[in-house]
Amino acid sequence: MAILYLSTPERGAVFREVLARAFPDLPFHDGTAPDPGGVTVAIAWTCPPDLFSRHPNLALLISVGAGVDQLDLSAVPPHVQVVRMLEPGLPAQMAEYVTLATLALHRDLPAYLDQARQGIWRAGRNRPAAERRVGVMGMGQLGAAVLAALAPFGFPLAGYSRGGAAPAGVEGFSDLAAFLARTDLLICLLPLTGATRGLLNAALFAQLVTADLIAALDTGHLVGAVLDVTDPEPLPQDHPLWRHPRVIVTPHVACQTRAAEGAQHVVQVLQAWQAGGAIPGLIDRGRGY
Amino acid sequence: MAILYLSTPERGAVFREVLARAFPDLPFHDGTAPDPGGVTVAIAWTCPPDLFSRHPNLALLISVGAGVDQLDLSAVPPHVQVVRMLEPGLPAQMAEYVTLATLALHRDLPAYLDQARQGIWRAGRNRPAAERRVGVMGMGQLGAAVLAALAPFGFPLAGYSRGGAAPAGVEGFSDLAAFLARTDLLICLLPLTGATRGLLNAALFAQLVTADLIAALDTGHLVGAVLDVTDPEPLPQDHPLWRHPRVIVTPHVACQTRAAEGAQHVVQVLQAWQAGGAIPGLIDRGRGY
Repeated sequence: MAILYLSTPERGAVFREVLARAFPDLPFHDGTAPDPGGVTVAIAWTCPPDLFSRHPNLALLISVGAGVDQLDLSAVPPHVQVVRMLEPGLPAQMAEYVTLATLALHRDLPAYLDQARQGIWRAGRNRPAAERRVGVMGMGQLGAAVLAALAPFGFPLAGYSRGGAAPAGVEGFSDLAAFLARTDLLICLLPLTGATRGLLNAALFAQLVTADLIAALDTGHLVGAVLDVTDPEPLPQDHPLWRHPRVIVTPHVACQTRAAEGAQHVVQVLQAWQAGGAIPGLIDRGRGY
Repeated sequence: MAILYLSTPERGAVFREVLARAFPDLPFHDGTAPDPGGVTVAIAWTCPPDLFSRHPNLALLISVGAGVDQLDLSAVPPHVQVVRMLEPGLPAQMAEYVTLATLALHRDLPAYLDQARQGIWRAGRNRPAAERRVGVMGMGQLGAAVLAALAPFGFPLAGYSRGGAAPAGVEGFSDLAAFLARTDLLICLLPLTGATRGLLNAALFAQLVTADLIAALDTGHLVGAVLDVTDPEPLPQDHPLWRHPRVIVTPHVACQTRAAEGAQHVVQVLQAWQAGGAIPGLIDRGRGY
C-alpha cells in the first residue's frame, strides 16, 4: 500500500509531512512510484491518461479541489472510489469571494470601474439590500457558507437545489423557473456535471454561450457579471470578456485548498477508508459530484 | 416658525410629505422662504454664504449627510445648533461599502483588475482572513456597523478612537502608533475635523499627500487602496489616481441619506428640539463632529 501524489510541490511537502505523522508506515511518492503496483491511493488535480493502467491496484482517487469536474470520471475504472476535498478553508474562501462579488454588483462596482477608466466622477443611487433579491444555486457546503455570509446584509435570500431544502431565513426552491423569477442577483455554485452543464444557458438566457453573455450585457438584460470560472480556462488574452465594461473576471481564485487543512482531510479519508467507514467527500459516480 | 429646505428636489418631495404629516402647521419652503425672518430650521448639505444674514432667526441647521465637514462651522453663528443625519440606512450602506472594499483588498482585486486589463490569467495565493489584521479608525455609529459586518469573516479586528472603547471581540486602541503597528489593512471612518485633517498623512506616510499615496503604492509600501473620498472632489478627469493600477476610486458613494429615513430623523430632531430634549445627532461645535 502506497500513496501517489500528483499536485504542486509546495502543497506536496505539507501533505507528505502530515501524512507521515498520521501513517508513519505508508510510503508517499511525489510524481512517480518505484513500485506502481503498490499504489493504492492517488492524490491529484488531474490524472495522466495512464494512471489507472500503470497502477492496477489503485482504489482511492482523492481530488485536491472542491470539485471533480476537472477529472474525466468516465475514464476512472468503476472500482476506484473518487473523493473530493473537504477542508474548512474552502467554504470560508468561497464566502469571502461571493460576498465580494455580490457587494460589487449590488454597489455597481463594474460601472464605477468603467467610469474610473474614463476619469468620470458620477454617483448613482444606492439601492437598499432589502430591495435586491439574491438567489444562490447550490445549497451544499459552499452554498450554505455563502448564504450565511450574505444574511447579515439584509438581502432577501433564496436557494435552489434538487431537494430545495434551505437554511433558516432562506427561501428554498427545487423549481428553477420559480427561483429565477424572484431573483435579481444570481450566484451559481452548482457542481459542473452532465446534469448542470449548460443549465444557466438554457434556463436564463435561451441557449446562453459566452457570446450570448456578452450580448445580454450589451443589451442591458444583465447589468453586470463577476466571473471566476470561464470557458475556456485560462481565458485567452484577446477574449472580449477581459475588457467588457460590465464584467469583472478573476482567474479561478475563489477557493484554493490549503495544504495543511487539505492534508488533514486526506488523513480523515484514509482513516475512514481503512476502517471501512463512510468516506467524507466520496463522489456519487452516478450524479457526478 | 418655518423650515427652509436646500437639497435635492427628489429628497425634498419626501421630506415635505413626511414633515407635513408630523407637523401639519409648520411651513416647508424648498429653496427660498417668502418670509425669511420666519425661518427657524434649515435642512441643507451646504449653505449659501448669506444663509445666516438672510435668516436671523435660524436656530437649527440639519445636515442631510452623516458628516458636517462640507459646512464651514466657523461661519455658523454660535447660537445655531448644527445636527448631522442619523438614519439607519447610513451605517448599513457603510458596512456594505467597507466590506466590499476590505474583501477587494484582502482578495487582491486591484491586481486582478490590472491583470484583466492586459488579458492575463494568473492566480495569486489567497491569504486566510485570520492572517489579515484589519484596523478601523473611528468607532462611532459607522465604525461599529463596519466592525460588526467584518467580524464573521474572521479578520483579527482592532479599532482606534480617542477613548479606545471597542465592541466585544475587537481590540480597542487610543494610541495611534500601537494601533497602526498591528494593522495590515486600514479603514478610516474618522470625521473630517481640524483634529483629523492630515492625520493619516503624518502618522502613516510621513506627510502623506495624494502624490505621496501614489508614491507609497508605486514603491510597494502600500499594496492597494480603495478610495471613496478624495481631495479634491470631484477628482479631476486627468488625475493619476483614476488610472493607478492598484487603486479603486468610487465617487463618494459609500453612504447616501435615504429620503424617507432621513425625513424621519428630521422629525425626531424637531420633536426633541421643541420639547427641549437631547437632539439626536447634535454636533459638538468644539470637536467639529
